Amino acid sequence: MLEDVRGYLTENSDRFKDELKTFLSIPSVSADSSRSAEMKQAAEFVFNQLSESGLEAEIVQTAGHPIVYGEWTQAESAPTILVYGHYDVQPPDPLDLWVTPPFEPDERDGYVYARGATDDKGQMFTHVKAVEGWMKTAGKLPINVKFLIEGEEEVGSNNLDIFLSENKERLACDVAVISDTSQYAPGIPAITYGLRGILACEITLTGPNRDLHSGVFGGSVANPANALAKMVGSLLDEDGRVQIPGFYDDVIPLSEEERQQFADLPFDESAFCADLDIDSGWGEVGFTATERRWARPTCDVNGFHSGYAGEGPKTIVPSYATVKITCRLVPGQDPVKLTQALHDYLKAQCPAGVQFDFKDYHGCEALVFDFQSPYMEAARSAIEQSFGRTPVMIREGGSIPVVASFQEILSVDTLLLGWGQNSDNLHSPNERFSLEDFGRGTHASAILLNELAKQAT
Amino acid sequence: MLEDVRGYLTENSDRFKDELKTFLSIPSVSADSSRSAEMKQAAEFVFNQLSESGLEAEIVQTAGHPIVYGEWTQAESAPTILVYGHYDVQPPDPLDLWVTPPFEPDERDGYVYARGATDDKGQMFTHVKAVEGWMKTAGKLPINVKFLIEGEEEVGSNNLDIFLSENKERLACDVAVISDTSQYAPGIPAITYGLRGILACEITLTGPNRDLHSGVFGGSVANPANALAKMVGSLLDEDGRVQIPGFYDDVIPLSEEERQQFADLPFDESAFCADLDIDSGWGEVGFTATERRWARPTCDVNGFHSGYAGEGPKTIVPSYATVKITCRLVPGQDPVKLTQALHDYLKAQCPAGVQFDFKDYHGCEALVFDFQSPYMEAARSAIEQSFGRTPVMIREGGSIPVVASFQEILSVDTLLLGWGQNSDNLHSPNERFSLEDFGRGTHASAILLNELAKQAT
Repeated sequence: MLEDVRGYLTENSDRFKDELKTFLSIPSVSADSSRSAEMKQAAEFVFNQLSESGLEAEIVQTAGHPIVYGEWTQAESAPTILVYGHYDVQPPDPLDLWVTPPFEPDERDGYVYARGATDDKGQMFTHVKAVEGWMKTAGKLPINVKFLIEGEEEVGSNNLDIFLSENKERLACDVAVISDTSQYAPGIPAITYGLRGILACEITLTGPNRDLHSGVFGGSVANPANALAKMVGSLLDEDGRVQIPGFYDDVIPLSEEERQQFADLPFDESAFCADLDIDSGWGEVGFTATERRWARPTCDVNGFHSGYAGEGPKTIVPSYATVKITCRLVPGQDPVKLTQALHDYLKAQCPAGVQFDFKDYHGCEALVFDFQSPYMEAARSAIEQSFGRTPVMIREGGSIPVVASFQEILSVDTLLLGWGQNSDNLHSPNERFSLEDFGRGTHASAILLNELAKQAT
Repeated sequence: MLEDVRGYLTENSDRFKDELKTFLSIPSVSADSSRSAEMKQAAEFVFNQLSESGLEAEIVQTAGHPIVYGEWTQAESAPTILVYGHYDVQPPDPLDLWVTPPFEPDERDGYVYARGATDDKGQMFTHVKAVEGWMKTAGKLPINVKFLIEGEEEVGSNNLDIFLSENKERLACDVAVISDTSQYAPGIPAITYGLRGILACEITLTGPNRDLHSGVFGGSVANPANALAKMVGSLLDEDGRVQIPGFYDDVIPLSEEERQQFADLPFDESAFCADLDIDSGWGEVGFTATERRWARPTCDVNGFHSGYAGEGPKTIVPSYATVKITCRLVPGQDPVKLTQALHDYLKAQCPAGVQFDFKDYHGCEALVFDFQSPYMEAARSAIEQSFGRTPVMIREGGSIPVVASFQEILSVDTLLLGWGQNSDNLHSPNERFSLEDFGRGTHASAILLNELAKQAT
């Protein structure tokens, strides 16, 4: 049966490409309030695609842009997956840097160039087409599939958690599937099995009620900028280790197997530095650059502002100083507990004559999925069959809020199956998606349904 | 003879007050380019005053506003003083906070209210009238007097050093006299015998060539804001002591006599804190607030800026971070040597992957005058006779550039004889000068000439 499905996908690949171009020609920019008609048009495009394949589909209104939901759930006692994607795209600016207009998809050198090509219309569309392949060939799917395609990913997914909370039963599934990340490198497909968590806060120190003359007052009052620098400077030692008491206590260390996996990945540190115009990387002693980015916690200042910012000197003691800090967290670390520890550590250093104010921006825990689960095995096998190479198992240093929401609200892991490339210019001019990757992703999705059906038996 | 002079001053005090009001009614705002006619008018007023007393006077054109110079130098083998003052005033804004218009001098409760009343027209005028008293009564002065009254003090005295350098011979003197500071408190006249020096610099750390995503890159590259905070935080220890190696090596310590002098001054620390809305002062352990402000070196951040400054969190590693720092210096400390020490101390802490740039804004040494010199003795005696109380000997925490210029270019000390009060609202609305202080200052100046003549015999 799978062979028939794959034959259908191959035979129809030109049509799929044309349909994708039609989808990409809709300027569904969620951030642009003048584009609400186009947002509706893109939602309807997805709705029609799902309906025409025989799924029960619906356009769900929200306080923002609509969510497209579709499902086929007639595979009794087979597993259920929830495919997430988004039909909205980033604004296309700056327009003058595009070789061809962002909403007039252009094919060059095996890529389709358009805003949304890889993020996320093109990647998401592979699953839509895979399901069509099964439905048009076998008249059914080997497992149950639910589609959740939102229109607000690029503007913060403000209405998604509400929809998840109000539709837990309807969305019940065994695992979620998202194709909105990248392969590790060209020719090296990847499955992302871990994401870092985060905590975020802002601290303001207030000293005298006005900027003071540093000659008249300097030395006799605490300077909030000096005091804040001392606090913030104490967060990392010379070896790049975070000094907040208890910060590493609950960290689940990287296994030797994972460290080996990371070490086996090709990584060109000099190219990495050259791209950033730095002479060297820097970070926690005892870990590689990849380990530092994906699997070690951090404490980064995002902004620090106090006093005079103009040209030349100005002899003042500033009235206040503010810093914004984020810590990236790894599995085991509790953002609530560590936010408190950070607060306590800094506050204890606050000198007399300075008021300490702490704003907690909340955060989320790190996520790491068992990379030997049956779902992972199914995905690995599907990718290997389609891409001709076993995917590498990677983590990412950032957080993907929807994955955290699926974990928290629906209690499911997510398979992060990226068909894109890091060089696809997502969020930049000349965004693109390889048509070869589009085809491989579509086949991998079709095979994945088959592999997941096997897992159930 | 002095009695006759003082009699003249007393008899003519109403006229002096009227003349001061005329002077104060000229809106000689040096910062306001539309006021060049009024600047000229004020310079001519001073010129006429000096000429009419029998001094040889001149209006000297500069690249900016003119300097008024006047001298009487017929007291052979007697000392020579150089009286410095300025006829320009601060802009009067905000106008709506003035009880009466800034250039319509108004007499209330024993004060004359007008822009420039204390800074510096009123204070400077005391010396002009004292000289008139001698010339009109005795037909001569007991010592040689030179007046140097500039019109650019409130805009940086850009042309003064040029004039000093080009007229060293003409300006040759034994000591300079300036009345442009304040008494210690109402009823407590003071002589300022010390000023702190300063060094000023700016440091910029540059990391990656763009702000980076703190999830994707955080932990693997040095964060310039964290690195700069660590450097800057290391400048002061918990006891408020500057940690730059060698910083205190050349400090000439306060004598026990000076510490006692400072301690004897009334100082209400709780009122000081209440005015600044702070619960406590803070500074170098082992020194009083007054010692910290006047006679101990400092290291203050004037501005620190890096990364995101908007509302809420933003998950970036900033590309660069900048800090502006000034150190106030005390006698013995060399600004050039310590600027280098500061540079070296910070640069040594710079982590890999960050570029260190240092901008030296130059500075000046601290000044402290022998408070037991004959000139000081003369001034002390003059003030005691006029104000009815021995002046307290104080220092100031700031620098007065013209005093440094007199030291450097003319190689003379300065007698800083402030007739004003800290409550005179200088640079603020409702600037004022006590008419009683105006009278006492005039008498003190007349007596000072007599006392200095005695010193010479």
